[in-house]
Amino acid sequence: MQVFVLFSGGKDSSLAAILLEPFFDVELVTFSFSLLPVGHIARETAESLGFAHRVVQLERSVLEQAYNLVIEDGFPKNAINLIHRAAVEKLAADNDISFIADGIRRDDRVPVLEMPLIRSIEDRHGVHYISPLKGYGRAAVNELVSRHLVIEEDRSENVIKADYETELRELIRQRDGPEKITEVFPAHVQSHVIERKKVQPNGSNQACTHD
Amino acid sequence: MQVFVLFSGGKDSSLAAILLEPFFDVELVTFSFSLLPVGHIARETAESLGFAHRVVQLERSVLEQAYNLVIEDGFPKNAINLIHRAAVEKLAADNDISFIADGIRRDDRVPVLEMPLIRSIEDRHGVHYISPLKGYGRAAVNELVSRHLVIEEDRSENVIKADYETELRELIRQRDGPEKITEVFPAHVQSHVIERKKVQPNGSNQACTHD
Repeated sequence: MQVFVLFSGGKDSSLAAILLEPFFDVELVTFSFSLLPVGHIARETAESLGFAHRVVQLERSVLEQAYNLVIEDGFPKNAINLIHRAAVEKLAADNDISFIADGIRRDDRVPVLEMPLIRSIEDRHGVHYISPLKGYGRAAVNELVSRHLVIEEDRSENVIKADYETELRELIRQRDGPEKITEVFPAHVQSHVIERKKVQPNGSNQACTHD
Repeated sequence: MQVFVLFSGGKDSSLAAILLEPFFDVELVTFSFSLLPVGHIARETAESLGFAHRVVQLERSVLEQAYNLVIEDGFPKNAINLIHRAAVEKLAADNDISFIADGIRRDDRVPVLEMPLIRSIEDRHGVHYISPLKGYGRAAVNELVSRHLVIEEDRSENVIKADYETELRELIRQRDGPEKITEVFPAHVQSHVIERKKVQPNGSNQACTHD
């Protein structure tokens, strides 16, 4: 049973993949507009985590729509949700895909797909859209991340991440300059997934450890 | 890292425990008012699934409050939510407990804890309340259940389950007769967890199978 996990290279989608791994054949999927090499960056992280990975092109029109939204709104929420929706729909439309997952957590507001949209995607395409972290609060996720992943925190704006924001920010930089980015996007600490930690048997009836 | 999974003996809480098992030391917890032997019934299922199990007494006053609610409302939703809240609070108040889980799914309306209450419980007690199935729709859960559990469907009203409804229905039966039960509770097919299925390696980098 295969699951395709929308993968930004970040800790949440990494953890979602790890939680699914005992139960599914996991493949990570990074979406790209080919504006920046986000696919390559995500691929490196996927390989260090030990998961299969593919990069899927998203239509430039989606990025243009997202750009218009973020310029109009003055904040990125709706633009990011639009891109996430397009990514999920694209996977859902693939006849070889039954399970689609992402790293959305309980307390996340962006991106979030509303329930009617989720049901619509599931019904129209006959797929299951799952969010393994949806029942986990921020602190619980942080606890699990600290147990399973080596993370590096970095305030640097110079390191590229493979999330939707990256190429949206790049387009804004190209059209409106770097000052516009700081107007629209909140500053936040970037965290980078370096590798997995070795986790010991936890006393459950599982007889093996992961390498 | 221990997690205590609220356990009704049903397929959802069983599946939640299975999904947590690779990552936590899982203990199943069944709550009882000692009106019926629900603890024993749940214990049998827990043993067949291979999980540690404990039975915890809930105060009779909680059952009385729930009874009053269901008689007043004419439907069980608020009464069941009240019992679930009391159960989660009881575990959360235990200083030895950090992670509490239940089998609530995305599409469930009963029982459900509202976000402000969840945050309140987590903050007041310094615990993590997690719902591993919260990001899974009904069909996705059914798919995973069919893969991991042997289930028996049964329209019989004679088989006791270890969920909150069981003792609430018993109290109603004692006080108001069996006709009152059918007035208040919807009829539904009972499903019983018999045992776990053997699941083959799925092509991931997990090198072992569960016995």
